[in-house]
Amino acid sequence: MSFDLEDGRLQGDLPTTDPETAAGAVGPEDLVLVSGFGGVGYPKRVPEALAADDRELSLSVVSGGGVGAELDDRIVESGKLARRYPFQTRRTSRKAINEGEVAFHDRHISRFGDEVRLGDLGTPDVAIIEAIALGKNWLVPSTSIGHSPSFVASARKLIVEVNHAQPVELARVHDIDLRELPPNREPIALDGPTDRIGSPTIEFDPEKVVGIVETERTDDPYTFRDPTEADLAIASHLKGFLEAEIERNPLCEETVHLQFGVGSMGNALMGALEDIEFGDHEVVYFGEVFQDGLLDSLDSGLLAGASATSLALSEAGQQRLFDDIERYAKNTVLRPADISNNPALIERFGVVGINSAVEVDLYGNANATHLGGTRMVNGIGGSGDFNRNSRLGIIALPATASDGEISRIVPMTPHVDHTEHDFSIIVTEHGVADLRGLSPRERAETIVEIADPSFREELDEYRARAVRGGGNTPHDLETALSWHASWNR
Amino acid sequence: MSFDLEDGRLQGDLPTTDPETAAGAVGPEDLVLVSGFGGVGYPKRVPEALAADDRELSLSVVSGGGVGAELDDRIVESGKLARRYPFQTRRTSRKAINEGEVAFHDRHISRFGDEVRLGDLGTPDVAIIEAIALGKNWLVPSTSIGHSPSFVASARKLIVEVNHAQPVELARVHDIDLRELPPNREPIALDGPTDRIGSPTIEFDPEKVVGIVETERTDDPYTFRDPTEADLAIASHLKGFLEAEIERNPLCEETVHLQFGVGSMGNALMGALEDIEFGDHEVVYFGEVFQDGLLDSLDSGLLAGASATSLALSEAGQQRLFDDIERYAKNTVLRPADISNNPALIERFGVVGINSAVEVDLYGNANATHLGGTRMVNGIGGSGDFNRNSRLGIIALPATASDGEISRIVPMTPHVDHTEHDFSIIVTEHGVADLRGLSPRERAETIVEIADPSFREELDEYRARAVRGGGNTPHDLETALSWHASWNR
Repeated sequence: MSFDLEDGRLQGDLPTTDPETAAGAVGPEDLVLVSGFGGVGYPKRVPEALAADDRELSLSVVSGGGVGAELDDRIVESGKLARRYPFQTRRTSRKAINEGEVAFHDRHISRFGDEVRLGDLGTPDVAIIEAIALGKNWLVPSTSIGHSPSFVASARKLIVEVNHAQPVELARVHDIDLRELPPNREPIALDGPTDRIGSPTIEFDPEKVVGIVETERTDDPYTFRDPTEADLAIASHLKGFLEAEIERNPLCEETVHLQFGVGSMGNALMGALEDIEFGDHEVVYFGEVFQDGLLDSLDSGLLAGASATSLALSEAGQQRLFDDIERYAKNTVLRPADISNNPALIERFGVVGINSAVEVDLYGNANATHLGGTRMVNGIGGSGDFNRNSRLGIIALPATASDGEISRIVPMTPHVDHTEHDFSIIVTEHGVADLRGLSPRERAETIVEIADPSFREELDEYRARAVRGGGNTPHDLETALSWHASWNR
Repeated sequence: MSFDLEDGRLQGDLPTTDPETAAGAVGPEDLVLVSGFGGVGYPKRVPEALAADDRELSLSVVSGGGVGAELDDRIVESGKLARRYPFQTRRTSRKAINEGEVAFHDRHISRFGDEVRLGDLGTPDVAIIEAIALGKNWLVPSTSIGHSPSFVASARKLIVEVNHAQPVELARVHDIDLRELPPNREPIALDGPTDRIGSPTIEFDPEKVVGIVETERTDDPYTFRDPTEADLAIASHLKGFLEAEIERNPLCEETVHLQFGVGSMGNALMGALEDIEFGDHEVVYFGEVFQDGLLDSLDSGLLAGASATSLALSEAGQQRLFDDIERYAKNTVLRPADISNNPALIERFGVVGINSAVEVDLYGNANATHLGGTRMVNGIGGSGDFNRNSRLGIIALPATASDGEISRIVPMTPHVDHTEHDFSIIVTEHGVADLRGLSPRERAETIVEIADPSFREELDEYRARAVRGGGNTPHDLETALSWHASWNR
């Protein structure tokens, strides 16, 4: 690697430009790949300039994960966004997607970099990447890695936003490696979550560069709500369950590898780690996002290390990490998303994955993306990678939504992101449903027990009515979706 | 390895017994792990003796994949089967499962060996394994490997059926390796599908052995129907699609790695390989089962090699392979199912996976297991491993069932095994739906076009009605399952 912290953010004779000029290098129907994951590390000024551009644009915008308002509010409001993949978290983009104004599809994070490189979305035109440092043929990404290595490799043109507001010491956290495409792809040579096999830089062909822009704009990061009573009850059930598993499950023999999903629930559960009795077991985080909840566990020494693809911290969390970045960099690693979420690594490390969902059904299928079966929330993100490949897959969710008016345990989910084959444990504030070894009929009896008490009777009536019709997975198709149909009305 | 073909099938001073005595070592409520995958390589005489046992038994029977009548007919008929995992193909077992008499759950094949070893089904009591040769502390499995290495490692007791009717030269095909359990699991060191990293033997602690039985009973293998007109039309569309991909997709640059699902459709498509123009590209099979359809391609040299976990051949196919086993063994490898189906290998080799389904919906979700949403057919098998991890996942299915009365393209599948995030291509006899890069609304328009003409108008009416309700994935929940509800009536 040719990067040296001492040499500053812009190394060599690099011509910078204003965001408007850089935006001019983006063609009117370009497939645009942007950095950003977990709401951080995304480009800010060039997207804003694209939104304000005089031309009629019809862009396809592809990120690794969640990005900020400059992309998913401003470009959407300007009417210049035609397509969007594979994840978004803003009210503006969500509305446009659900009204059919923006074509959107959500893909599994672990394989999405390959899909872009293989041309599944068409030929990528331009990558816009936020960096903390830039040389002639390399850049150092900022607060997230996401799919930036794949994006830089596959786009014809490259625009870099060098962000002076992000600490340059983030380079110490990065471990970047671009895998060969199949069929000549090697195994990933990581022995453990905090091993390093790469460098802090993404390399590129200098001829691709069509714009370098400087900025001091900060991320527009997550705001986490305070844990609710339900969150705390779920954390308490999870504690009991995990402590029993740590005692008996060979998976946890020496080291417990944990992953938590993105969002306030995940953050609350990360924050509750301190309460769990891990005994002599080492605890390591191998996940997709590093959220505020992990900072305390790293500080206390409970967590031996953490691997992720994004520092998806709140503003306060970012400040805490940035203020002490050299210390955190010792046992915290940011990786490309196809490595942080890699099925082979999740399997090899025996990850215990804890994710949330919109709703689950009586047979252990989960809808993680669509309200009422139709309206997209954010996208599947990496939850499919972790639910499927974790050796112990847990879905944690409150038993109700909308102040208790809607049950999140339903007869049948009208949209399925995680099937009955993928995960084994469901936790609500009312308890733990351990589905291992159970048949669908037994699953239903078990899952009814962790529903909100006010819905249990009706769920059990559905279950019994369905069983009268027979089948391995009994359903009464006439009423299976009637709850959702009435909620939607 | 201590196995030498020259020394015969029973090596050393090994006491054999009759099947009834061996069956006596199985406790009345034992968790019984049996060899067998793709309808071959399963134990025969001890299961038959269990079915005829005087005792009241309530057994849990766990296989790798499909097994024969001795297990899934005889034991079921005897009323001694309480639980069954994770796959079965017999009318008798299917009926008992759907009537709720036998508790059944289907799991992803790639992870099932781990689930057994980690105790997800309880503590395994006894493994009953068919072998072609046996020593003091090792056995050589027969026509399938499946999960036998994991089963032998995790069961307290071991019964071996040494089958003199299976050619001992099968040992040349086997490449067996038992992986460490997570969290200290290494990457799988295979560079390509026909590489070898193991031995022909499964090793065990001699103290576990509670019975050795000899048999000459042959497998009760698959019978494949002749290709139908729909199969041939599907094969023709697949040919056109694959030839275009071979030209342009970096996945296929040097070597095309193919996988086909189990069954008559898969067999018909394997048989149609010869018609595809692969040009200079090497073609290798990396799948779960090796079926008759591949024999011609191996003979002609089109296929450079094949990796699977089962020789799921018809009687005629078995004869053809057995007669020339030394030649076939040169480029055919049988592996444990957690390696044949491993997510990391499917991803690394860039497999083009072609599987079938019961039905698909307008948004590209597939039901591979349940008729009418409730009645189990066989189980998910390895289709989830290949659909999810293949870089190009294809579902091939006839557009109708029941002599054209039922559409296999439906508004919403009442059971989902493979989600819209998992596979990208659907092929029917009416064409190819290439879903890459499409939003759900675009997917629906595309998928309607490959439905049977007699259902297209009604599907399109559903699609348009759903769109009026809005959402990223529009549905009319009042009528989404009405086709199935009326078919079920």
